[in-house]
Amino acid sequence: MKHIVLATLTTASLMASSLVDTATNAGLMPIPESKTELLKLIDNPKNPITEEKVELGKKLFFDPRLSKSGFISCNSCHNLSEGGDDGISAAVGHKWTTNPHNLNSPTVYNAVFASSQFWDGRDPDLEKQAQGPIQAAPEMAATKEHVVKTVNSMPEYVRAFKKAYGKNVKVDFEKITDTIASFERTLVTPSRFDDFMNGCPSAMSKAEKKGMQTFIDKGCATCHNGVALGGSMQMFELTGKYKYAKGDFKGDANGLVKVPTLRNLSSTAPYFHNGGTYSLKEAIIEMGRIQLGVKITKSEAASIETFLKTLDGRKPHMLVPMLPASTSTTPKPNLN
Amino acid sequence: MKHIVLATLTTASLMASSLVDTATNAGLMPIPESKTELLKLIDNPKNPITEEKVELGKKLFFDPRLSKSGFISCNSCHNLSEGGDDGISAAVGHKWTTNPHNLNSPTVYNAVFASSQFWDGRDPDLEKQAQGPIQAAPEMAATKEHVVKTVNSMPEYVRAFKKAYGKNVKVDFEKITDTIASFERTLVTPSRFDDFMNGCPSAMSKAEKKGMQTFIDKGCATCHNGVALGGSMQMFELTGKYKYAKGDFKGDANGLVKVPTLRNLSSTAPYFHNGGTYSLKEAIIEMGRIQLGVKITKSEAASIETFLKTLDGRKPHMLVPMLPASTSTTPKPNLN
Repeated sequence: MKHIVLATLTTASLMASSLVDTATNAGLMPIPESKTELLKLIDNPKNPITEEKVELGKKLFFDPRLSKSGFISCNSCHNLSEGGDDGISAAVGHKWTTNPHNLNSPTVYNAVFASSQFWDGRDPDLEKQAQGPIQAAPEMAATKEHVVKTVNSMPEYVRAFKKAYGKNVKVDFEKITDTIASFERTLVTPSRFDDFMNGCPSAMSKAEKKGMQTFIDKGCATCHNGVALGGSMQMFELTGKYKYAKGDFKGDANGLVKVPTLRNLSSTAPYFHNGGTYSLKEAIIEMGRIQLGVKITKSEAASIETFLKTLDGRKPHMLVPMLPASTSTTPKPNLN
Repeated sequence: MKHIVLATLTTASLMASSLVDTATNAGLMPIPESKTELLKLIDNPKNPITEEKVELGKKLFFDPRLSKSGFISCNSCHNLSEGGDDGISAAVGHKWTTNPHNLNSPTVYNAVFASSQFWDGRDPDLEKQAQGPIQAAPEMAATKEHVVKTVNSMPEYVRAFKKAYGKNVKVDFEKITDTIASFERTLVTPSRFDDFMNGCPSAMSKAEKKGMQTFIDKGCATCHNGVALGGSMQMFELTGKYKYAKGDFKGDANGLVKVPTLRNLSSTAPYFHNGGTYSLKEAIIEMGRIQLGVKITKSEAASIETFLKTLDGRKPHMLVPMLPASTSTTPKPNLN
């Protein structure tokens, strides 16, 4: 009896290890368990992660006073309570303006693993990315001067910058966005997929493993690979029922669009760069048709969906930050 | 030497105890140190506080999907990171509409200690209050049906309601707002003022005690009394440079306006029910003129301000809540 159980376990382990190999060969990569290995992946040598920067960046990420209105923070559209995005098709911002190119807010969780930032991949890293939405008229609508003046008006922020960068620090726009990026670099969410890939065969069920095999067999990993299961630039054009409206984003100069991460899909609907569908099953089938030219049946899509839910990750535990009080020199909110 | 120190301490204690008596006679009350005493003050027998309701209510408080747009949560205007309000003169909400009566969002911290809710005191408690902004067109703009359908569409929420109210619970609008109120009832912020009133003479400096005496001598405690140092209804009319614009709120049918709490003033500017000024010193002087008919000099105002900062409280530590994922039956965001 004992012998049989052992044999079964061994077979299961072998099967698992074979699936891990298949996945690895297909380019799927786990978030490393080792903190040292993880740090290598998420750190930026030009802006090394430190505890002081992360704590400070977290406050700034949650601070609506960086926006012109005083009402919108990074967390408004990249809501850490809601999967790191806003659940709305096209992002809304200053003066209730929707994104002029009908672009959906991507999740900030695991964004560090993408090879470039924004749907057109125009920025190389989170440091540069963080400068965009703060200044974009339909988002936070602030100027660099507003942001710098706001942060420097609060002694608690200035003290924290000195702690993070040394007492002679000049708190400029780049330092402010660098600290926000440092915080964002820590927003990684290991999941059962990672546990499985890192050597725990029981972390995924039989049905989930089957879905993973189908995901690979159908070719999904051609674009959705790496640690983010996405994050690179690929040729892409929505067709059929998702066809573009006037002004819609259609990719960069070469027609390339950033492949979104598949991590935490359960809480990041709607899908596609224009938020075209709230149905994950539909998104899977349509990606087969549009990107791979293959037919994915409803039952195959259900199986792939079962696998994709193993990518719903464990979010970092963090306290609701308490922000410094405004002072007489803090710029006043401007709703116009 | 030892004798002298003892004598000094005794004098300090006596002076402190005399100031505590003066403050108590003027109607100032501390947040009790004893958890049992505090619970008596903050609980609602019709909606008793339980851990399950508070945890659930916290999630709902942070959940923008209760609003029509999916973009605005209770926390948007009563931002717990920002002193429990939004720092904007007149609240902004759905479709970027500012409050039609130019009313400022009051802080939710310590709102439990007020004798009624809203600037016109129209609601008796937080349970009833929580029903208002969710449905108000310029705020969250939702219908009861939207809220009930949203919450019931997520099994994790339904399970949490069963845990809080028993397995046969019907998750209706009242239960939803009751749990939000239960959470809000816990948002109390004890401060150095309370430590002083509760028997620790060294919790306030000499200058702060002097400011407290001035605060009482000038008559501020006539309206700003009780645990909230505010929270009752009083005759009030802004005059002079703060004079009303057309449509502005001018009090209830009897010209009464709710007296705001003085707790956490450092992070709740701008002041007055119309957010008329960002300067605390100015607010103090103007209140003397408008409400008390007394001249408060700049140095007296500075002294009172020094005292008022002892009311900046210790905020509850809480984790950023992780919200349940939307499902196919969750109502979609509607920005219009």
